[in-house]
Amino acid sequence: QTLLLLPGDGIGPEVVAQARRIAEALVPDVQIEEGLVGGASFDAHGTPLTDETLDRARKASAVLLGAVGGPRWTATARDKRPEAGLLALRKGLDVFANLRPAFCFPALVDASSLKKDRVEGLDLMIVRELTGGVYFGQPRGIDEEGGLRRGYDTAIYTHPEVERVARIAFDIARGRNGRVTSVEKSNVMESGLFWRQEVTLAHAELGAGVELAHMYADACAMELVRAPKQFDVILADNLFGDILSDAAAMLTGSIGMLPSASLGAPGTPGLYEPVHGSAPDIAGQGIANPCAAILSLEMALRWSLGKEKAADTLLAAVGKALDRGARTRDLGGDLSTRAMADAVLNAL
Amino acid sequence: QTLLLLPGDGIGPEVVAQARRIAEALVPDVQIEEGLVGGASFDAHGTPLTDETLDRARKASAVLLGAVGGPRWTATARDKRPEAGLLALRKGLDVFANLRPAFCFPALVDASSLKKDRVEGLDLMIVRELTGGVYFGQPRGIDEEGGLRRGYDTAIYTHPEVERVARIAFDIARGRNGRVTSVEKSNVMESGLFWRQEVTLAHAELGAGVELAHMYADACAMELVRAPKQFDVILADNLFGDILSDAAAMLTGSIGMLPSASLGAPGTPGLYEPVHGSAPDIAGQGIANPCAAILSLEMALRWSLGKEKAADTLLAAVGKALDRGARTRDLGGDLSTRAMADAVLNAL
Ligand SMILES: CC(C)[C@H](C(=O)O)[C@@H](O)C(=O)O
Ligand SMILES: CC(C)[C@H](C(=O)O)[C@@H](O)C(=O)O
Repeated sequence: QTLLLLPGDGIGPEVVAQARRIAEALVPDVQIEEGLVGGASFDAHGTPLTDETLDRARKASAVLLGAVGGPRWTATARDKRPEAGLLALRKGLDVFANLRPAFCFPALVDASSLKKDRVEGLDLMIVRELTGGVYFGQPRGIDEEGGLRRGYDTAIYTHPEVERVARIAFDIARGRNGRVTSVEKSNVMESGLFWRQEVTLAHAELGAGVELAHMYADACAMELVRAPKQFDVILADNLFGDILSDAAAMLTGSIGMLPSASLGAPGTPGLYEPVHGSAPDIAGQGIANPCAAILSLEMALRWSLGKEKAADTLLAAVGKALDRGARTRDLGGDLSTRAMADAVLNAL
Repeated sequence: QTLLLLPGDGIGPEVVAQARRIAEALVPDVQIEEGLVGGASFDAHGTPLTDETLDRARKASAVLLGAVGGPRWTATARDKRPEAGLLALRKGLDVFANLRPAFCFPALVDASSLKKDRVEGLDLMIVRELTGGVYFGQPRGIDEEGGLRRGYDTAIYTHPEVERVARIAFDIARGRNGRVTSVEKSNVMESGLFWRQEVTLAHAELGAGVELAHMYADACAMELVRAPKQFDVILADNLFGDILSDAAAMLTGSIGMLPSASLGAPGTPGLYEPVHGSAPDIAGQGIANPCAAILSLEMALRWSLGKEKAADTLLAAVGKALDRGARTRDLGGDLSTRAMADAVLNAL
């Protein structure tokens, strides 16, 4: 079994280095490799993802990515930007279901922006479609028509795209509280109405034992702030999932805590990444919170590497480290990235 | 001067009736008319907006709308649904700039989901583009291609569409703290990159004295929860503005408090509506919070009817009523819709 690390840019390498130390201690039998993605790959090879790296990712059991992007590359042509490397990797691995858990560690209830009663015991899972929608739809471009400058994208979903991600949401709900809330803007978008119809059909076929509700994306954003504990699994398309999961992130104290798993067909490698970005403002200072990367490793152990017990141990260790007061700056403490990882290692 | 009331569906008529009482007391010289929109119009005329109503709206000085929609009409054909009436009204009046203030009345700090320090003194303004983007872009539809069912929309903006709404955001910022944060997903959408380019150009031309920043929509959703007081004016497209303003709504205690103004070219009537919806679950019970409708009237007085002093008086009266403890259910109290309006009337 191999775990391919793609540290990427900004704080990516800093947090992935700590996840690596933990993997080496916890699952020494897993073979670890490293590669380049994003700006780091662009600087070395002139492209944010080489065919060779994508090939290595396809052959790995799991891929752990740090973060991509930064101001250094914003003037670069669009298809050479760090973000293009991430999108190409997601698409290349066909990891269509992005799982973003938002749970509040008991020790971090006080770090949340929300009042205690709103977030204590919070545990929801966002299942975001990751390889379709407006992120990839054609046609798209910036051009001139009839003397008018314009920019456009196509938000599009097809039957199999919605069905396969809905299936994953139902499967995950069955292992939780059995409730899925599907989110769209079917009141104003055709692709939203299509999404609702397809999820409803998929539910009739594949959703035994799962309760399905529908909610508009704007209402969901509001409900996530008002009463987030009402949700179990939220199913959303690529764009709404992106925004809602960032909003949900702050309910849990810090986006520095949140991992994600992106899954494709059974037997294919999963892609694991922190929900946070490359955070250029704090990169290089050794103060980033490594927990999102560490918990992404935890998800890799659970979902791709078949090491549930090691995953349980790691999750418990993060909780224990927090209970003992370990805190990076984003959580109001002053531990360095490495010291935070040490606290987790000591709690293993 | 005429104010056209379009109460609409659900709690719409209940809250608009209270705004009407206040208008009659505060600005007796304004002539008040009523019309139908949404499901109410569909039931009476088979369409959610008649040409005649649109015509009356065009001739009014301002239009105050309650809310549209409800489960009764979801099986109706798409272009006959209540929401289609609202979209046709916005488009027909060409009210391209939707102003959604989010401020936290001192008396309501405790009603917010967020901790006190996060929202005390909060006062931000979301300027949402309202007549373009994915809400109206063509082509759009649900069909089959090559045996594959699919749903699609077009997210599109043109140069004049972005420029005119950016101009409004800059103008409004000048009357506030002089800062505009423009929001998009330029890292993944062409229309987002176009939006950023056009706002940047408009700023160079029209933004004297205004500081412009750019933020990704996902980051903005997170920052609205983490530290909302960092914002002055947020400028967003139709879809992102819809979602972000609902998220911002809950920062202020209750969506039942939030008004909006939709403005077109100078001299054309503005459209005023609560940010909340028709709330079918509490419709007919007389318990809805009328403040959003009352504050929408306040915005109409200020932005369309040239009655700034009456607007100031009304805004102060709402604050005073809250200070004196007036609370509907959504705010944790037990006042009826009418009693809440009485509290405002008494404070005038
Ligand atoms: C970096 C960006 C392309 C990416 C996205 O929009 O998917 C990020 O925001 C995320 O959520 O992983
Ligand atoms: C009712 C619906 C069409 C509308 C919208 O999406 O614009 C509403 O959510 C709003 O924000 O005014």
